[in-house]
Amino acid sequence: MIVPTFTDVIDAHARVQQFAHGTPILTSDSIDRIVGGKIYFKCENFQKAGAFKFRGAINAVMSLTDQAAQRGVGTHSSGNHAAALALAASMRGIAAHVVMPKNAADIKKKATASYGAHIYFCEPTLEARESALQKIISETGAIETHPYNNFDVIAGQGTAAKELLEAEPDLEIVLVPVGGGGLLSGSALSVRHLVPGTQLIACEPEGADDAYQSFIKSEIVPSTNPKTIADGLLTSLGELNFAIIKEKVDQIVTVTEVSIIQAMRLVWERMKIIIEPS
Amino acid sequence: MIVPTFTDVIDAHARVQQFAHGTPILTSDSIDRIVGGKIYFKCENFQKAGAFKFRGAINAVMSLTDQAAQRGVGTHSSGNHAAALALAASMRGIAAHVVMPKNAADIKKKATASYGAHIYFCEPTLEARESALQKIISETGAIETHPYNNFDVIAGQGTAAKELLEAEPDLEIVLVPVGGGGLLSGSALSVRHLVPGTQLIACEPEGADDAYQSFIKSEIVPSTNPKTIADGLLTSLGELNFAIIKEKVDQIVTVTEVSIIQAMRLVWERMKIIIEPS
Repeated sequence: MIVPTFTDVIDAHARVQQFAHGTPILTSDSIDRIVGGKIYFKCENFQKAGAFKFRGAINAVMSLTDQAAQRGVGTHSSGNHAAALALAASMRGIAAHVVMPKNAADIKKKATASYGAHIYFCEPTLEARESALQKIISETGAIETHPYNNFDVIAGQGTAAKELLEAEPDLEIVLVPVGGGGLLSGSALSVRHLVPGTQLIACEPEGADDAYQSFIKSEIVPSTNPKTIADGLLTSLGELNFAIIKEKVDQIVTVTEVSIIQAMRLVWERMKIIIEPS
Repeated sequence: MIVPTFTDVIDAHARVQQFAHGTPILTSDSIDRIVGGKIYFKCENFQKAGAFKFRGAINAVMSLTDQAAQRGVGTHSSGNHAAALALAASMRGIAAHVVMPKNAADIKKKATASYGAHIYFCEPTLEARESALQKIISETGAIETHPYNNFDVIAGQGTAAKELLEAEPDLEIVLVPVGGGGLLSGSALSVRHLVPGTQLIACEPEGADDAYQSFIKSEIVPSTNPKTIADGLLTSLGELNFAIIKEKVDQIVTVTEVSIIQAMRLVWERMKIIIEPS
């Protein structure tokens, strides 16, 4: 298994920053007073297509050779990766084939469609999603671009933490949410290289604690029947992601549904920002 | 009447930037596509105490001599100026006396109280507010700090447009909301000095169009029975503000309630930001 390193994050950043927003880092005195510390929020909710996912998607799309790119890209996703890949593909002028479960949120369907992707709806199971995608890939020749278990996607996601740490190098702790592990593994590459003494702590919903279980057992425990409002954190860890996470992450903590909702509300009231539960 | 000039904005900025956030300027490709142009949003909703009002308040408070400052500051306000002045006073370690109408929004009362202001509730009329404030000022000796008809407040509000234009000097149009005219008159000082060829257009709710009427008649038309969701734009123009506005503003346009609500929703959906109707 060939895993990306910080050098790949540097290469990714050279590509990503041509297309993505360098998102602002915001602070709030009022929240600092509540927590008794100083918090720097890297606002990837302001990223193009609405989430950090665009960093990985644009890096993957722009890393393709011209010949490969002509075949287009394909993925299955219910959410932000679908829209991000669709936008990235449209920026390169190539086709995006996206399999979405038919129960995906309307706003995600519309966003993905608005970037010109070919959308294929399927039953909302992993099996149905994967078989639909394989069928499309064999018909179109599209390059599969996995939402997180993908070398270039991981390197792209690492650019968010790289920007954060270049602006704020004295952080004691970096907190990163974990679902499939794309953002966490990418962030780990940047944190361990740029600020080796900084603690890297992953945060996961109590009701979808497969990464926490995997970290303790040092082997991937699949996510089964996850229950959480954080709809971006339902998936199991990818193998590439876990290889990086188990080596470079200090700790995984779980949080309750109530605390997720309270945090969304606090950020909304005090910072005037809308964040996803994930 | 001695009105502030851009030199006063420069002096104000030296003070303000020690205490205020240099707020980010955000863009949205998706909104740009809808309007067919490029928009730069100066995000004063992320300012300390939640609004640009803090710029004027901190400039006024920090401009006081030590002797004057000891007497504290006083104002009447139902909204953002109350919280901004309370925070500014607390940063200088002096008292803030704030008269609020008893029907002010709970969240504004709480915010003002949380910064340690002395709050005095009164009936929700301009007469009751002014007489309550005069009584407190004569008892405490506090320095009256008007929300907008105040030299130092205007100079402080001008720092937001100064920051915007220093970062983005090539704007064709600058759009500024107008209520009492504090932000508009301050912005006018910065726009006319830094980018004299740029159009400066004020925006006002149709249901509270006293600035529009004043601009046409070239004399202050008081705001009578205004009806709008934009609760920060209900007041009449100040004399200092109007002196600057009638000389330096190109145009005042009015907007409907529906378009205000649509714009709030659009910014919420596409930019993940909560903005006030004002």
